[in-house]
Amino acid sequence: MSRKEGKLYVITGPSGTGKGSICTEILKDVNNEFSVSMTTRDAREGEVHGKDYYFVTEDEFRDNIEKGNFLEHASVFDHLYGTPKDMVEKQMAKGRNVILDIDVQGALQVKTAMPEAIMIFLLPPSLEELRTRLEKRGTEDPEIIEKRLSKALDEIRLIGEYDYYVVNDDLERAVTEVKSIMTAEELRVPEKVKDIIKRYEKE
Amino acid sequence: MSRKEGKLYVITGPSGTGKGSICTEILKDVNNEFSVSMTTRDAREGEVHGKDYYFVTEDEFRDNIEKGNFLEHASVFDHLYGTPKDMVEKQMAKGRNVILDIDVQGALQVKTAMPEAIMIFLLPPSLEELRTRLEKRGTEDPEIIEKRLSKALDEIRLIGEYDYYVVNDDLERAVTEVKSIMTAEELRVPEKVKDIIKRYEKE
Repeated sequence: MSRKEGKLYVITGPSGTGKGSICTEILKDVNNEFSVSMTTRDAREGEVHGKDYYFVTEDEFRDNIEKGNFLEHASVFDHLYGTPKDMVEKQMAKGRNVILDIDVQGALQVKTAMPEAIMIFLLPPSLEELRTRLEKRGTEDPEIIEKRLSKALDEIRLIGEYDYYVVNDDLERAVTEVKSIMTAEELRVPEKVKDIIKRYEKE
Repeated sequence: MSRKEGKLYVITGPSGTGKGSICTEILKDVNNEFSVSMTTRDAREGEVHGKDYYFVTEDEFRDNIEKGNFLEHASVFDHLYGTPKDMVEKQMAKGRNVILDIDVQGALQVKTAMPEAIMIFLLPPSLEELRTRLEKRGTEDPEIIEKRLSKALDEIRLIGEYDYYVVNDDLERAVTEVKSIMTAEELRVPEKVKDIIKRYEKE
């Protein structure tokens, strides 16, 4: 089969559903890599430009906004962060799958900017279990936890915007399910139908 | 999660691509079962009505045609064979996935009758390899093999009608890929989005 373009997988879900752990496992496949964000904050010790982040000035960042080059962007604590579309497309052109671990709000921005992105929504086994997980982190007061749970339910109500859902009750099973989704997406017919036919015709 | 309806998987591909072997493996999962065809031919020794086939009279068969109850039907050596829609729907309602191992012509009829069916097209690694496989069967003369190869290419040209393709170069890998497709289809969001939301709302 001729070399294929990679795809963009957006992995999102309410805070506490384990996006990070799942992405870490998915990234072990050499064909998958994280997207690299652009930011206006300073590099911390050991951070490498182009690997951890693209470190840019605020002017450069705003330039990218004007050019419409962000799949999503947001302001966090006075700094700007965004996912540059051109860089993601460069990774995909090399045949790599790009994994975007992102909050629900950012995920919906990405879908608008790149409708062909494959949207995976992670769910907790239940809100009760999500509460337990948030409590175990031990850093949040009860009021904040209530707010997060209520936000989680609001986010779940938007699940119709996504292509797939994975319930993270068991990490290993959830990772297998995400991998199955990626395998199935590799095997979808429409977009590359002409390549397949050509391959057999030229024999 | 509330009990889900099963899905209909149509597994097809040119003659010699290994549909049978793949289906045998897929059927080992207790949640998957073959569809049972209706036929006007007589039951052979040991064949069970409702398990191997639904054995019916020609009148009964034609009655089903008139009622529009066939996902596909065909005449083979003076006998009629067809896949009764009501029976397939009954299996799906029980939460079982129905597997239909069928030739390409029948597969396209099924897609018309049930557009929600998931269509998987099996490909040989190459036409050259398909020729080798057909020759190994040892029962065909060269002219028939040429006809089959030419028919295979015609069938491959219609691959745009299918949802997924799987290249059967290694049986184990092909089976894994079909299973990944089935897992991913289980995890697709749209159709059951309301059930998912309800489940978290009622906590």
